[in-house]
Amino acid sequence: MKKIDGGVTAPKGFLAAGINVGVKAKSKKKDVAVVYSVKKGFATAVYTKNTFKAPPCVVTEESLADGQAQAMVINSGCANACTGDQGYADALEMTKLTAKALTIDPKDVIVSSTGVIGVFLPMEKIASGIEQAAEALADDGGHDASLAIMTTDTINKEFAYQMELDGQTVTIGGMAKGSGMIHPNMATMLGFLTTDAVIEKKALQNIFKDVIDDTFNMISVDGDTSTNDMVCILANGEAGNEMITEGSEAYTQFKAIVRTICEEMSVSIVQDGEGATKLITIIVENAKTIEDARKAARTVSTSNLVKTAFFGEDANWGRIITALGYSGAEIDPEKCDIYIGDMIMAEQGKAVVFDEEQALEILKNREVTVRCNLHLGQASATAWTCDFSYDYVKINAEYRS
Amino acid sequence: MKKIDGGVTAPKGFLAAGINVGVKAKSKKKDVAVVYSVKKGFATAVYTKNTFKAPPCVVTEESLADGQAQAMVINSGCANACTGDQGYADALEMTKLTAKALTIDPKDVIVSSTGVIGVFLPMEKIASGIEQAAEALADDGGHDASLAIMTTDTINKEFAYQMELDGQTVTIGGMAKGSGMIHPNMATMLGFLTTDAVIEKKALQNIFKDVIDDTFNMISVDGDTSTNDMVCILANGEAGNEMITEGSEAYTQFKAIVRTICEEMSVSIVQDGEGATKLITIIVENAKTIEDARKAARTVSTSNLVKTAFFGEDANWGRIITALGYSGAEIDPEKCDIYIGDMIMAEQGKAVVFDEEQALEILKNREVTVRCNLHLGQASATAWTCDFSYDYVKINAEYRS
Repeated sequence: MKKIDGGVTAPKGFLAAGINVGVKAKSKKKDVAVVYSVKKGFATAVYTKNTFKAPPCVVTEESLADGQAQAMVINSGCANACTGDQGYADALEMTKLTAKALTIDPKDVIVSSTGVIGVFLPMEKIASGIEQAAEALADDGGHDASLAIMTTDTINKEFAYQMELDGQTVTIGGMAKGSGMIHPNMATMLGFLTTDAVIEKKALQNIFKDVIDDTFNMISVDGDTSTNDMVCILANGEAGNEMITEGSEAYTQFKAIVRTICEEMSVSIVQDGEGATKLITIIVENAKTIEDARKAARTVSTSNLVKTAFFGEDANWGRIITALGYSGAEIDPEKCDIYIGDMIMAEQGKAVVFDEEQALEILKNREVTVRCNLHLGQASATAWTCDFSYDYVKINAEYRS
Repeated sequence: MKKIDGGVTAPKGFLAAGINVGVKAKSKKKDVAVVYSVKKGFATAVYTKNTFKAPPCVVTEESLADGQAQAMVINSGCANACTGDQGYADALEMTKLTAKALTIDPKDVIVSSTGVIGVFLPMEKIASGIEQAAEALADDGGHDASLAIMTTDTINKEFAYQMELDGQTVTIGGMAKGSGMIHPNMATMLGFLTTDAVIEKKALQNIFKDVIDDTFNMISVDGDTSTNDMVCILANGEAGNEMITEGSEAYTQFKAIVRTICEEMSVSIVQDGEGATKLITIIVENAKTIEDARKAARTVSTSNLVKTAFFGEDANWGRIITALGYSGAEIDPEKCDIYIGDMIMAEQGKAVVFDEEQALEILKNREVTVRCNLHLGQASATAWTCDFSYDYVKINAEYRS
């Protein structure tokens, strides 16, 4: 597997475009993106767990019931969330407009929106954007599309990887959006992946669900979950490799490449967390079950006290052990070891005398790893988070005012 | 029912004292408290849900298995948490030392510690403190005891109420400690209540559990749960009222007074949250079940985004509805109304046009109420929280450094 330049248009047979039509008021930034595959393919998505699922997520879930798609349409600036029946009609209309412009079936269009909650889509602008984007589609248009899905993001998040499968080059590309659920009126976690792999529908679905559980579902900037979160993948089969089926070696290899790109996309969102000065990786090892491992890692990663301690470069393992204790995971306080970097801070639940200066050296880095060994089983999970700085409060308190 | 001056020594037959013996290094602040009842009574407690339950909680739970107690011993400065077998032995020793000084049974002593995690109790100092406190016991010693349980608290938290029951005056007093789980190495939520009511053991247990679920368990400063949290009550029966039994009118009246004092104690902890500039009351109405109502109210109260919005005096109902959506409570997005103060912000899950200036007037107050009507049933719950300011990050990042 190797990393290459590009994003959603890196795999064969994908075109994309990003257009500015002023959905984001007072901005010349791009706000409508269309991604198109020359051939209909298998597609699957994972949606927000928020009960207030925004209309675009509802429409996409309905469209993907048959596991197939050929295009994606995304707008930024307006989330089309908490918009009721009108919002549903508008999301559906976006798929119809896209389908018409591309001469495909509306049921084959994935739709997604991100931006302000509680206002209706400016459908005239959206319609014009879709039309222009469809005309501008290009095989190097992935970058423009990626720019068009950004809201509060400060860095463009595009990634692509290639691998060889039975002598054929298989490519996967992706673009992500999100600087954490930091402006819930303006931010959402989105991921759009494209691949030219030939793969069974069921195999694609299983790989994607597993990988998302380990990547996008394990990142946190502040613990809030948006109404619009969605990650999807579309496989058009243009690479010409032998069909990837469940249980095959190619399945394992392809899953690894999907995991790599999804992990990179997820980490890029955390690193773009507003006010973030550090990337913190939380590894929970030897939990009894994978659910316990994930729960424990996620709880540590969402603790304000852990996050402020890292901002302060404070080797405060008490906050880590406290978070493990209320995570709901099975924990034996007498067995738990805590490491920051390579330094052990607590052994079998009890304090270890450590060199404070050496600890500070570790904590000064821009990337810090916390390792919690529960000694209860064999399951492991990793969560990623950022530290919690003055700027987080500043940005979120001053928003709108 | 009427509010009176005083705390744990307000009810008949209770003595208390608070002593400084230097458990808190470099401080002349009091750090050992003893509360004593002239008569053994019924007692019950609610403990932290953190898996890493500190030894004093474990020892108290064992002692209260018979539902009886006669004294309380509390130290601040050292939490005796993550201290293993030695910690357990030390907590047990505290009950023995107290029992010896008071000539009572060690099994009748409630023990509690709060302060730094992962270090052992300085038992010589503690022993001296217990001895001095036992000698200093006084029927107006409640205030000194209250001072001795404070750590990062900036305000003393003592409350007392009186009511008439069959011509007898029944008094309840309490002292609380906690400025939220803001310094998990230094803070814990503690509540110690005393009453002279004559009450059945089972009635006392039921009332206390119900009330704690609605009060101490519904407050949040930052969502973290300490290893040492504990709230307990000791009823010595000195008021001479007719025995309060389950289902009686007196039961309902007494429950109301316990709720009133516990709510006041809980709110005082939230208001003392470091960096807090506002008290925010979250009321969830018409949930399907009481569990749903509590879950929804608690989730809104622990959302960083909701808390920073209130600091910024921003009528950001999108953050409230988002938090409801991921709370895990049953929510119908099409039915949910959100009010800030008396102003409706969202009706049936959709935005309502509101007067921004009028909203700002409401948000400028030091106390703000959020009301979420789920329209799904009859259950209601209230949660209390504070806003989230620069000072929260400052205090927590700079701690230890």
